Amino acid sequence: MTLSEIDTPAVLIDVDRADANLRRFQAYADSHGIAVRPHIKTHKLPRFAQRQVELGAVGITCQKLGEAEVMADAGLTDIFLPYNILGKSKLDRLVALNERVTLAVTADSAVTIRGLAEAFGNGAKTLDVLVECDTGMGRCGVQSPEEAITLAKQIDSAEGLRFAGFMTYPKTGAVEQNEAFLAAARQKAVDAGFDPRIISNGGSPDMWRAHEVKSATEHRPGTYIYMDRFQVSKGVGGWDDCALTVLATVISRPTDNRAVIDAGSKALSSDTFGMEGFGRIVEYPDAVVASLSEEHGVIDVTACTRKPQIGDRIRIIPNHACVVSNLFDAVVLISGDEIVEVTPVAARGRVD
Amino acid sequence: MTLSEIDTPAVLIDVDRADANLRRFQAYADSHGIAVRPHIKTHKLPRFAQRQVELGAVGITCQKLGEAEVMADAGLTDIFLPYNILGKSKLDRLVALNERVTLAVTADSAVTIRGLAEAFGNGAKTLDVLVECDTGMGRCGVQSPEEAITLAKQIDSAEGLRFAGFMTYPKTGAVEQNEAFLAAARQKAVDAGFDPRIISNGGSPDMWRAHEVKSATEHRPGTYIYMDRFQVSKGVGGWDDCALTVLATVISRPTDNRAVIDAGSKALSSDTFGMEGFGRIVEYPDAVVASLSEEHGVIDVTACTRKPQIGDRIRIIPNHACVVSNLFDAVVLISGDEIVEVTPVAARGRVD
Repeated sequence: MTLSEIDTPAVLIDVDRADANLRRFQAYADSHGIAVRPHIKTHKLPRFAQRQVELGAVGITCQKLGEAEVMADAGLTDIFLPYNILGKSKLDRLVALNERVTLAVTADSAVTIRGLAEAFGNGAKTLDVLVECDTGMGRCGVQSPEEAITLAKQIDSAEGLRFAGFMTYPKTGAVEQNEAFLAAARQKAVDAGFDPRIISNGGSPDMWRAHEVKSATEHRPGTYIYMDRFQVSKGVGGWDDCALTVLATVISRPTDNRAVIDAGSKALSSDTFGMEGFGRIVEYPDAVVASLSEEHGVIDVTACTRKPQIGDRIRIIPNHACVVSNLFDAVVLISGDEIVEVTPVAARGRVD
Repeated sequence: MTLSEIDTPAVLIDVDRADANLRRFQAYADSHGIAVRPHIKTHKLPRFAQRQVELGAVGITCQKLGEAEVMADAGLTDIFLPYNILGKSKLDRLVALNERVTLAVTADSAVTIRGLAEAFGNGAKTLDVLVECDTGMGRCGVQSPEEAITLAKQIDSAEGLRFAGFMTYPKTGAVEQNEAFLAAARQKAVDAGFDPRIISNGGSPDMWRAHEVKSATEHRPGTYIYMDRFQVSKGVGGWDDCALTVLATVISRPTDNRAVIDAGSKALSSDTFGMEGFGRIVEYPDAVVASLSEEHGVIDVTACTRKPQIGDRIRIIPNHACVVSNLFDAVVLISGDEIVEVTPVAARGRVD
C-alpha cells in the first residue's frame, strides 16, 4: 500500500524522526546521569516503549492502570504509575499487576496510602510507593516538603508498602521552584532516616533543563518522541523533529480564503494550550487552522500565496500529539513517504 | 453488577431521560410536520438509531462513511451522509453502501460532483445528492442560492446522480438568515424546473425553532438525545434532561479548595464552546471544573459549602456529549441507579 491509498484522516508517524527524538534525549540524559523513564501516553504503542528501553530507558511510565496492563502484556517489565489508585477493583488489579512486573505508584494522601496498605498488607508482593509533590503545577500532590515526609512515614510504617521517593509533574518553566521543593523534601527524608531512592521529575516542555533539577534522579518525558506544535512553541524541538502528523483531505473551498478539511476535533482534538489555531499545516505554513467541529477543520488561507485545492492531501502537526494518538484505532508508521506498517494503538482508550 | 462496581471514569447513559428527549422532539416535529432525521454522532449506538426510527424518524444522519457502514450493518436502512465524499477508495465504499441502503450525500463543489458522477455513472444504483449551503455557519457550503442552483444543474445532468434538494448546518441563533437562504434556493430550484424534495436543516441549539425555518422539510438534531452543558446553556433542555454523565472518582484533595478527579480531557474532552469550565458536577453544582490534563480534572470547590472527599464518586455533565461518546469504547446504560447493560460504542472512532 502507498500513502495515496490511505483513507483520510489518518495519523502518520515518521519512525526515523521518532527514533532520532528518542536518541537525542537519551544521550542528553546519559550525559547528565539522569535516568529516563518515558511516559507512554504519547504513543501508546508497545513497540516504541520497547525501543525506549532498548535505547537506555530504565522503565516506562503509564498514567492509567489499563495502559500499564497493556504494556505488561506486551512484555514491558518496569512500570511506574504516578497516580493515586483507589477502590477495591483497581487495587485488586494493582496487586495482580505487581506480581508480574516491577511496579511503583504514587500517593498524595493518607486515604490513598490506607487503601494501598489494605490491599498489599496481606502477604502480597511489596509495592513501591512514591509521594507525589505539587511543586507548582497545581494538580495533585502534597503542598510542602513537611507534608511529604508525613506521608513517607505512613508508607514506611505500612505493611506491604515501601517508601521509594518523591515524584512531581512540574509547572512548565518553574524549574527553580521545582528543584527547591524536591531538594527540601529529599533532605528532610534523609534527615528522617529514609532513602528517597527515586526522585522523579517529568514533562517534555522543560526536558532540556532536566539537569538543573539536581535533586531528581530520573525524568519522565512523553511528547518528546513525537513533538508537536506546542513543544515547538516552547523551543523543545523544531518542525522537522515533529514525527506525528494528521493526513487530511481538502473537501471544500467555499470562498477564496477558506478551505475545509476532513479532520476536525475528532482527529486533532480541541487542545489549544493557549495558542491560536489547532495545528500547523506542513505544506501551507501560513494557513491558520481557525476552527474545528467534530468532522471539519476550517482553514483560513488568506495569508497563503499558493492555496490548497479540493482533493489535495495535506499534513497537519497537531497542537498536542498525545491526545491525537488516543483518537485513532490505528496509526500509519512511515519512513520518508513509504509505509512501514499500519499498527493498532494498543493502549488507546484505556480510560481506567 | 451495580454502579459502585464500575471502574471510573465511565460514561453513564440514563436511558429513560434519553428516551424522553427523543419523544419530546419527535412530538414537536410531528406537530409542525417536520421530518426528523437524527444525527447519530452523539450516541454512535445502533440501538438508539433504531429507537429514533421506531419513534418516527424518517432515517438517520451520519457524518462519516465509516459510521454509516456501522449503522447499515446494524440494519438501519435510510442514511444521509451530509459530506463531500472524495477519492477513489471512499467513492468505492459509497457505491457499495448505496447498494444496500437508501442513501443521500451532499456536494458543495463541481469537483465533488465530478467525482460522484465518475463513480456512479457506470451503471451503479443512482445516488441522491443534496447541495450543501453555507447559510451562516462559515464551514462548508455554497455561498449563495445562485451557486446552489448551478450545482443542482450539474448534479441533474450527471448520469448516476439525482438532485434531491438542499442541506445546511446553520449558525446557532441565525434562524432568519438560514430561512432566507433556503427559501431563495428553493424558489430558484422550482423556477429552474427542479424538485428540491428535501430541504434539510440541522442542529440541536435551535431545534425548538425548527418550525421557523419554514422552507426546511426535515431537521437533523444530534445532541438532543443526551443534552449537555452547552445545550442547557442555550436553553434547549434542563439539567434533569441530561442523559449522559461521566462517573469519576475524587483521587486527591491537595488543598481546601482543590479536588482532583480521575477524569481529564481523555474523558471529558477539551471542548468549551466559549463557556468557563469543562462540565457541571451533578452533586456539587457550585464546583468549577477548572482545568483538565489528559487524566486529571482539577476542580475548584471554593464555592461549595459541602466539599467532596477522596474516594467519593461524582457525576459530571460534560460541555459536549458527542465527543465524550467518541472517547469511550463502551458506555453504561442505566435506569435510575440500576445498570441496564454495558454496551460497546459501535460507531466510535470511525474517522473516515
